[in-house]
Amino acid sequence: MTQRNLAFGIMLHGAGGHMHSWKHPAGPADASVNLDFITGIAQKAEANGVAFAFVADGLYINQQSIPHFLNRFEPISILSALATATTKIGLAGTLSTSYSHPFTVARQFASLDLISGGRAGWNVVTSPLEGSAKNYGGEHPDHGLRYEIADEYLEVVQGLWDSWDDDAFVRDRQSGRFFDQDKLHTLDHKGKFFQVAGPLNIQRSPQGQPVIFQAGSSDSGIALAGKYADAVFTHSPSLEETKAFADSVRNSAVEHGRTADDVKIFPGIGPIVGATLAEAEAKYLEIRNLLTIEDALAYLGRFFEHHDFSQYPLDAPFPELGDLGTNSFRSTTDRIKADAKRTGATLREIALAVATPKTQFIGTGEQIADELIRWFDAGAADGFILGFPVQAQGFDDFVQHVIPVLEARGRYSRTLDGKTLRDHLGLPRRESRYATAETV
Amino acid sequence: MTQRNLAFGIMLHGAGGHMHSWKHPAGPADASVNLDFITGIAQKAEANGVAFAFVADGLYINQQSIPHFLNRFEPISILSALATATTKIGLAGTLSTSYSHPFTVARQFASLDLISGGRAGWNVVTSPLEGSAKNYGGEHPDHGLRYEIADEYLEVVQGLWDSWDDDAFVRDRQSGRFFDQDKLHTLDHKGKFFQVAGPLNIQRSPQGQPVIFQAGSSDSGIALAGKYADAVFTHSPSLEETKAFADSVRNSAVEHGRTADDVKIFPGIGPIVGATLAEAEAKYLEIRNLLTIEDALAYLGRFFEHHDFSQYPLDAPFPELGDLGTNSFRSTTDRIKADAKRTGATLREIALAVATPKTQFIGTGEQIADELIRWFDAGAADGFILGFPVQAQGFDDFVQHVIPVLEARGRYSRTLDGKTLRDHLGLPRRESRYATAETV
Ligand SMILES: Cc1cc2nc3c(=O)[nH]c(=O)nc-3n(C[C@H](O)[C@H](O)[C@H](O)COP(=O)(O)O)c2cc1C
Ligand SMILES: Cc1cc2nc3c(=O)[nH]c(=O)nc-3n(C[C@H](O)[C@H](O)[C@H](O)COP(=O)(O)O)c2cc1C
Repeated sequence: MTQRNLAFGIMLHGAGGHMHSWKHPAGPADASVNLDFITGIAQKAEANGVAFAFVADGLYINQQSIPHFLNRFEPISILSALATATTKIGLAGTLSTSYSHPFTVARQFASLDLISGGRAGWNVVTSPLEGSAKNYGGEHPDHGLRYEIADEYLEVVQGLWDSWDDDAFVRDRQSGRFFDQDKLHTLDHKGKFFQVAGPLNIQRSPQGQPVIFQAGSSDSGIALAGKYADAVFTHSPSLEETKAFADSVRNSAVEHGRTADDVKIFPGIGPIVGATLAEAEAKYLEIRNLLTIEDALAYLGRFFEHHDFSQYPLDAPFPELGDLGTNSFRSTTDRIKADAKRTGATLREIALAVATPKTQFIGTGEQIADELIRWFDAGAADGFILGFPVQAQGFDDFVQHVIPVLEARGRYSRTLDGKTLRDHLGLPRRESRYATAETV
Repeated sequence: MTQRNLAFGIMLHGAGGHMHSWKHPAGPADASVNLDFITGIAQKAEANGVAFAFVADGLYINQQSIPHFLNRFEPISILSALATATTKIGLAGTLSTSYSHPFTVARQFASLDLISGGRAGWNVVTSPLEGSAKNYGGEHPDHGLRYEIADEYLEVVQGLWDSWDDDAFVRDRQSGRFFDQDKLHTLDHKGKFFQVAGPLNIQRSPQGQPVIFQAGSSDSGIALAGKYADAVFTHSPSLEETKAFADSVRNSAVEHGRTADDVKIFPGIGPIVGATLAEAEAKYLEIRNLLTIEDALAYLGRFFEHHDFSQYPLDAPFPELGDLGTNSFRSTTDRIKADAKRTGATLREIALAVATPKTQFIGTGEQIADELIRWFDAGAADGFILGFPVQAQGFDDFVQHVIPVLEARGRYSRTLDGKTLRDHLGLPRRESRYATAETV
């Protein structure tokens, strides 16, 4: 029997995924630094069976950045704060392997994992924006090098996470033995980029190790996902493209000696739901009108290393950009260029569509439930990450209109049965690399 | 009128400050990773007017480490978790400037500060243990260089914290203006150790900036404290020595153009309280007996770069160690050497005294309250950090026996009147370096 239940994650991204969602009257304008608002969303998500909350991140801002990126909570701290404000929902966040120390990151996620009772997830990114280097000194490594670093980085972190066997801490007051020496594993990693002796100064969690998310979708990203990821966060341009992407990730997993089922595919979607299709479309237009064409050009520029698109005529075909964008958000920029070429769309049309995409996920509860199930049954998704354009309105509508339909069709349950994030994702506990057949 | 009220911080250090506190029956053996236990202490501290909780840290362990150092929560994550489990108590933690990135650390403490409503404190340390380098690659910088790095590091972090004026985020939905460009300050730091452009991607908190604690007590440590610290965490060998130390920190503050009152002195103490002196001494002996002489030698070795003291005769005078220890916990090792020389004590005596010091803070509630007030009135302390040898027992006894005496004498209140950690410490809000006289 195939698994029939959909799983959801929810983006905690302030006012919403839309660049100017802060202007929408449904929520607070300061949502990205409003603890009560964010906690409320996480708690409501948990009460409605959402498997995990997801915090994106970035290490560089300038005056052209998306407003709520200018001022937001840092992932480790907000996820840890949510760990004590929730009880079941998974807590996943982004952290870059290009600008951090593996010993520190291993500790912080392991600590979050233990504090939350096994609910932590780490979205491993390599930092697309060149500007990050300006806040950390040194040069921004190029795309290939970033992924080479990420690979060794993950090897180190997962090694550190297995420093202590599950039963290493005996804490026997009688004998005075705190730990069992045979169950301590010192990593002694000496690689190309990192030298890390270990051991880590924290034990494994109820789920064994934090869940690894991966979000890059270039070939290097797919290879990294196939080797390490438990879940992949990806785009959702169409069912067919996402299905092809999902299969390539699954193939990569198999090539790395894992099974296709070891890595769960989560396209990110931005549903806009109404009681009727007309209502949903009206909501779309309201959101669309939150920005001017200048805003849309600036948003587009973000993906192309903050390229200034205002220099081109708006109603001429999308400009030729050469290699621009390949060293940052490559998969996104490749897709934009391909779409422009295929459709012959103008710069204005592309900019508006990128800033406020009119996706398959705009409609009634029935329509959206149909679409979600269609993707799921086609193998394009094991679940979805809900990145509502306007958080406050979007999630309420989704709970009201979509979830009841999914429940009625027997494809969703609001009850999170398991305790850990791996449970919620249908992944087994991650056993230690040192565990023998008997001890597992 | 001089300030009459004492302030307390409390160490959250698992089972307690004593090396083998985990063996004591009063608390759980897994206290250092027991969220309920730690949260319970923090909440009880808050209910009893304790100004802040304090989390120490270390970046390197080996088999000789203190048991609860082997397995403990990482500071940023546990403090953030406590931010939502408490409402008033300050939340301070240790993070090393020798093994971290200032942009990341500035963000994490700023985020904790905002999440907690202005209750964050950062204990700036430089990592005494050479082993830390093994987990981060590269060489361990020597004592002088570590402090040079720390100085530039703090300049960067405090600069980043002032990236946005308090009223920079206007979030005007009508005009579409999210922030006021004139109230954004890009750091553009280019120094000897760090290049950090900024701005930081998070706003200032209700207390302006996190409180800076400093814990090194060498001359370099004192200079750093005088320049940057809001509070100093120090040893408490005797009132006279601590008073002399406090004065040197205050003088250093004045030399750096601040006032003596700008930096608060918090000696760390480990009270053992009984209903009678005999009861307190019995508790001391019970704690003292938690360890063997071998344990005590290993504990002593920790301060001297894990030197193996078992090679020396136990009952001969303390060995001559030359420079050993000067590059790690220098102020502690200098003091141990000086004590040994002055008293002619044996290795056994020194080891036992270091592992389970018999301090002035063992006694009845009356006796300890007297001693605390004596230190306070002499100017040796603005408050104390309570590092109970056995957390579970020690704090309960303190609340039962000492706090009521301090209250009766009008020297303590269980009510935290202010909202921020700066309020609790009697420090003014930290205004931005860019604030003009009019806007303050
Ligand atoms: C769905 C999705 C979400 C992403 N989230 C983040 C993020 O939160 N922070 C970040 O720095 N990069 C993020 N990235 C960027 C990727 O980590 C990666 O650096 C970028 O996509 C370039 O790699 P690629 O060419 O493999 O796609 C995301 C990418 C995708 C596709
Ligand atoms: C009371 C006190 C508490 C300290 N706490 C820590 C700590 O939590 N983590 C750490 O790595 N170092 C800690 N240190 C070490 C100092 O940061 C510093 O590296 C060390 O004392 C050597 O510097 P010094 O010679 O200036 O004292 C502490 C030192 C003192 C005196």
